[in-house]
Amino acid sequence: MSVESRLAEIGLTLPEIATPVAAYVPAVRSGNLIFLSGQLPMVNGELPQTGKVGGTVTPDEAHELAKICALNGIAAVKGLIGDLEKVVRIVKVTGFVASVPDFVSAPVVVNGASNVLLQAFGDKGVHARSSLGVAALPLDAPVEVELIVEVAE
Amino acid sequence: MSVESRLAEIGLTLPEIATPVAAYVPAVRSGNLIFLSGQLPMVNGELPQTGKVGGTVTPDEAHELAKICALNGIAAVKGLIGDLEKVVRIVKVTGFVASVPDFVSAPVVVNGASNVLLQAFGDKGVHARSSLGVAALPLDAPVEVELIVEVAE
Amino acid sequence: MSVESRLAEIGLTLPEIATPVAAYVPAVRSGNLIFLSGQLPMVNGELPQTGKVGGTVTPDEAHELAKICALNGIAAVKGLIGDLEKVVRIVKVTGFVASVPDFVSAPVVVNGASNVLLQAFGDKGVHARSSLGVAALPLDAPVEVELIVEVAE
Repeated sequence: MSVESRLAEIGLTLPEIATPVAAYVPAVRSGNLIFLSGQLPMVNGELPQTGKVGGTVTPDEAHELAKICALNGIAAVKGLIGDLEKVVRIVKVTGFVASVPDFVSAPVVVNGASNVLLQAFGDKGVHARSSLGVAALPLDAPVEVELIVEVAE
Repeated sequence: MSVESRLAEIGLTLPEIATPVAAYVPAVRSGNLIFLSGQLPMVNGELPQTGKVGGTVTPDEAHELAKICALNGIAAVKGLIGDLEKVVRIVKVTGFVASVPDFVSAPVVVNGASNVLLQAFGDKGVHARSSLGVAALPLDAPVEVELIVEVAE
Repeated sequence: MSVESRLAEIGLTLPEIATPVAAYVPAVRSGNLIFLSGQLPMVNGELPQTGKVGGTVTPDEAHELAKICALNGIAAVKGLIGDLEKVVRIVKVTGFVASVPDFVSAPVVVNGASNVLLQAFGDKGVHARSSLGVAALPLDAPVEVELIVEVAE
């Protein structure tokens, strides 16, 4: 089953590639690795929600936003290599959660991204991961997710 | 002398691999690079101390915790490749320190991790490094350390 | 035109390599990738300005500091490989902005670094990028920039 049909199973469709908010590109390949720009949870070019997790944004809401970040990341990979079946491995996920200082459950939020990647890529989607609570994210996004992806020659 | 005997010289023993707090694996290899998940200073599955550095946690205490992060990272590498003598280079260390905003000495904390890596790997342990003060870390850990490691074929 | 003459066009000169503030090296190469240590906006070994962006530091001031970070990063690459014409691609830029929680325009600051890299390397300078607002940076620096760079054999 293709990556996109596995996503469809859980009701997700790849978006058009989210336009970066500044002077850079969504993804760069070097050898067999693709380094992605930090993915914000943009939907049709807008953030569905802003604010800090543990403040005005609940962990559940942020978990949903992290799923969108992952979906945008998969779309960025597709935009670069065309065929998602060329993905060999999701190598690394870094999840940044805009957190009030006493919100210490960033991993719960970032699980939203991890779960989408597992659904999309199966065993190839199992990754190393860091989850971090940061002071603020671009456009007051509650979550930002960054990926390193290995692809076939 | 082996990596583990060099660690024993300073009284350190590799732990069992720390269990991730969420749905990911401790380390993923791509080509000759291993990307590690962010390592918390877990000891026997628990954090010996929580809180923010510059708040309830002193820099000296955090420096000790950073040593544990590095040790857990070395254990994660061993868990993946079996033989630590295959390590060619500690390429990159990123140290995240949960900081109150006026604590601006993250490098002093992260030195704890750097020193363990130098002790363990000698010249192969000399790395590039970033030190960052973040708003909050998983489980209210004061420190989290991430590694990129080059290994032989 | 050489990288250094392209920088001269906008009035920039490569500095001596900034000395790390702790026990690590400015850059490590693994295969064709160079991983840089986080670059602070040091000028002659000192920070021209300290503080948080959105607090005592304006976005415009931080944008200028981000340019210095990029310049120091280019100098670190030169220090490692000698000849900047061997740079194949600026692969990834991560810009950390020491931010008060309501400063959500880190990308505007990090553009300072991106613009220097584009000026220096042209098409090879187009990169993937993450911009993050963090709680605090070493020595109270307002900005820190990290690079991954691909070089020729």
